[in-house]
Amino acid sequence: MAKNNKKMVEAITSMEEDFAKWYTDIVKKAELIEYTSVKGCMVIRPYGYAIWENMQHILDGMFKETGHENVCMPMFIPESLLQKEKDHVEGFAPEVAWVTYGGSEKLEERLCVRPTSETLFCEHYANIVQSYRDLPKLYNQWVSVVRWEKTTRPFLRSREFLWQEGHTIHATAEEAIEETERMLNVYADFCENALAMPVIKGKKTESDKFAGAVSTYAIEALMHDGKALQAGTSHYFGDGFAKAFEIQYTDKENKLQYPHQTSWGVTTRLIGAIIMTHGDDNGLVLPPAVAPIQVVIIPIAQHKEGVLDKANELYTKLKASGIRVKIDDSENSPGWKFAQYEMKGIPVRIEIGPKDIENNQCVLVTRYNGEKTVCSLENDLETLCATVSEKLEEVRAGMYAKALENQKAHTYSCTSMDEIKSVLKEKGDGFVQAMWCGEEACEDKVKEETGVGSRCIPFNQEVLSEKCVCCGKPAKHMVMWGKAY
Amino acid sequence: MAKNNKKMVEAITSMEEDFAKWYTDIVKKAELIEYTSVKGCMVIRPYGYAIWENMQHILDGMFKETGHENVCMPMFIPESLLQKEKDHVEGFAPEVAWVTYGGSEKLEERLCVRPTSETLFCEHYANIVQSYRDLPKLYNQWVSVVRWEKTTRPFLRSREFLWQEGHTIHATAEEAIEETERMLNVYADFCENALAMPVIKGKKTESDKFAGAVSTYAIEALMHDGKALQAGTSHYFGDGFAKAFEIQYTDKENKLQYPHQTSWGVTTRLIGAIIMTHGDDNGLVLPPAVAPIQVVIIPIAQHKEGVLDKANELYTKLKASGIRVKIDDSENSPGWKFAQYEMKGIPVRIEIGPKDIENNQCVLVTRYNGEKTVCSLENDLETLCATVSEKLEEVRAGMYAKALENQKAHTYSCTSMDEIKSVLKEKGDGFVQAMWCGEEACEDKVKEETGVGSRCIPFNQEVLSEKCVCCGKPAKHMVMWGKAY
Repeated sequence: MAKNNKKMVEAITSMEEDFAKWYTDIVKKAELIEYTSVKGCMVIRPYGYAIWENMQHILDGMFKETGHENVCMPMFIPESLLQKEKDHVEGFAPEVAWVTYGGSEKLEERLCVRPTSETLFCEHYANIVQSYRDLPKLYNQWVSVVRWEKTTRPFLRSREFLWQEGHTIHATAEEAIEETERMLNVYADFCENALAMPVIKGKKTESDKFAGAVSTYAIEALMHDGKALQAGTSHYFGDGFAKAFEIQYTDKENKLQYPHQTSWGVTTRLIGAIIMTHGDDNGLVLPPAVAPIQVVIIPIAQHKEGVLDKANELYTKLKASGIRVKIDDSENSPGWKFAQYEMKGIPVRIEIGPKDIENNQCVLVTRYNGEKTVCSLENDLETLCATVSEKLEEVRAGMYAKALENQKAHTYSCTSMDEIKSVLKEKGDGFVQAMWCGEEACEDKVKEETGVGSRCIPFNQEVLSEKCVCCGKPAKHMVMWGKAY
Repeated sequence: MAKNNKKMVEAITSMEEDFAKWYTDIVKKAELIEYTSVKGCMVIRPYGYAIWENMQHILDGMFKETGHENVCMPMFIPESLLQKEKDHVEGFAPEVAWVTYGGSEKLEERLCVRPTSETLFCEHYANIVQSYRDLPKLYNQWVSVVRWEKTTRPFLRSREFLWQEGHTIHATAEEAIEETERMLNVYADFCENALAMPVIKGKKTESDKFAGAVSTYAIEALMHDGKALQAGTSHYFGDGFAKAFEIQYTDKENKLQYPHQTSWGVTTRLIGAIIMTHGDDNGLVLPPAVAPIQVVIIPIAQHKEGVLDKANELYTKLKASGIRVKIDDSENSPGWKFAQYEMKGIPVRIEIGPKDIENNQCVLVTRYNGEKTVCSLENDLETLCATVSEKLEEVRAGMYAKALENQKAHTYSCTSMDEIKSVLKEKGDGFVQAMWCGEEACEDKVKEETGVGSRCIPFNQEVLSEKCVCCGKPAKHMVMWGKAY
């Protein structure tokens, strides 16, 4: 960092000093959100929302490629509808917001603001699904949902959050399970490719399933502070909801059958995941695919003849080549601008000054590692465009590799409770891999004694030992344990 | 219509017989919506939602081109915040939904589900606007809002509806007024170009303004039944909200000033407007720009050799050229398919059968007027792609001309109350142009006696007489009167 950037950078708490404060400093100073007078609800500001729009654009394309259609359900669920599936209402009723008045009139039946929309989709399916010809229905919606959380943090846990919720209904269990797995893979691909964030795919234990699900799959990512963040979930419901909501179809033999359902979702929480996977003490670090601005051009000594002209020429050319580029020719000093765009996490900075122009070149600086590259401005700027495109891909790959390295460095295989405790004490929080017998009592005891809970049963299983890390009885699975956001 | 289509078509009530029933038949049979157990709230089904997505895509591009950024405000407004601007709360409080419980705990302060978000934007502005350098802020959000209406109809008036709400804040009144007008023009351009729907631009009278606005501009469209539909509004707030919310900025002379605000919105109501502007007794008629499917290919005698191959060749080529195209090679009869895609309002149908293949041609049929065109399949199908593209533009222009003709045929200039009554009786509902003195008493009396209320004071003024149509005193404006949705 150049000396003249210090002033701004000092305004962020360092990650070492106070990770939680570092996080909230970034969400505020990078202008992602602003607080409101409604506790637990936030304004997502233009820069934060543009990240979400880019995520939506990519994911929506992936959903449509896999045959899904967007719909829009009401935001209200009548209390009686929410109550139809027993496990579901038990899971959600304690944390819903209740509408009791319309204008000055008390409602005959309370309506909750959707915490999730399984019940609404089920009511709809019951209306539109009659025959095997009506199946499958592959739906998704982009909406906000409300959960009345006690403690809240921007993006990670808020009372209202934005998400997509996919809901599908199929003739057979096999098809529905296949869908559940397909969408978990879509999420994992998205996280790894678009967000440069490695994830662990796995199945949740019984105690950690979604309310009403037969099985819940999840992707788990490791944050800078060694805590785990559930980045997306995909649920298989079997025919439980169909039975509760009396959804039936006639099959090819004209027999009545119950269909099988799934749901899956990711949320604005992914913005929090980006911050805590890639961010550093200079601020946000954005993966190029979702960065609202991929390249910022900063003219050096811009009062000198020819500098602004050349900078604008680069801008026009890069923009025309499809890169999201900004030029900052404001009166602020280059040092201030460097710090400002580092805070905002812009993947590539281009510096161009009189000396660069003399040498027919410019300098590219990549945000995630501070590396400088001199780039020629020959060939009608074609070289520049190609170099920047390559650089953006290089940045993605580099960010992914760095995050993966961090994840691996903080993943510990343990075969005893003592080992779990000592490795966490010695190396700090992280993912703990350890064998488990499958009993909830042991799951609880591991959490109670060591502080790490089960995150998932990874699809990639290893046999670390024959015995449960807790009770010593024969182990059924290797579990990934961790402290969770 | 071919005879074998009759069966399906008879399922819709004709427009003549019962316009309201015709309308609801279309929203159901074209699979735009489905009712739910929450009165006044609907499921927007994939076909309906895809129309909205296309509208969003075009409008969002227009907003971004005019410098606006998307944000997202909370869906809840604390009661005390809603009450800060007196006129605003009076207008909206009677029709908001109140959240009073979070889980099992009663809230200390009631929260309403946003009916519109001026108060939230104001709270945010107060946090982020300090200096003239912070102005203007040009924001928009795509969300749903809730208004507790007594009588509801799909798209036209529902308790929850989808919309965009633009909110901007400016240093000067002039800038804010310019913005209000700019966005009304954006809406008018969108309606005329993308929806092929002519609109009248004008200003609302004092009694018809948005709650809290200094002035409200609107675009009004004429439906098939002669009723007016308000298709979009744009409000200028002056500095009233700024004063109520204590939003101030320091100007270049370092003096404290109140900024000036606007807001503007269009809603899913526009889907209702499309139905009632372009629809006919065979169903929906969609403008090409927002049609989820622009062209449907229907193979004739598809079991004959070569038919499906050729039809698929057309499909692949048209798709590659960027046209939203579908092929229906299902077992249903061509007649059934014709009726089905007429119901869904697909702008262009392509028929291709053995005789067409013999002649190296296909037949294009345009939905809005049933016109057939024979199109050559020469030149590696380049001719087809060009003809279809031209045809889609021709359809847009033709639909617009037809709607404009209808609007003109049902716009009556009157200079007396008796003339208003007799023209409406003789020619049916429509727009009535008549002079007005500017007094609310006369505005009310015209509505009471003739049944038509003031829709707007059109920007395009004519002097039909020197006198108010009601009281005979000197007239100030020509008003457009009508029965409203």
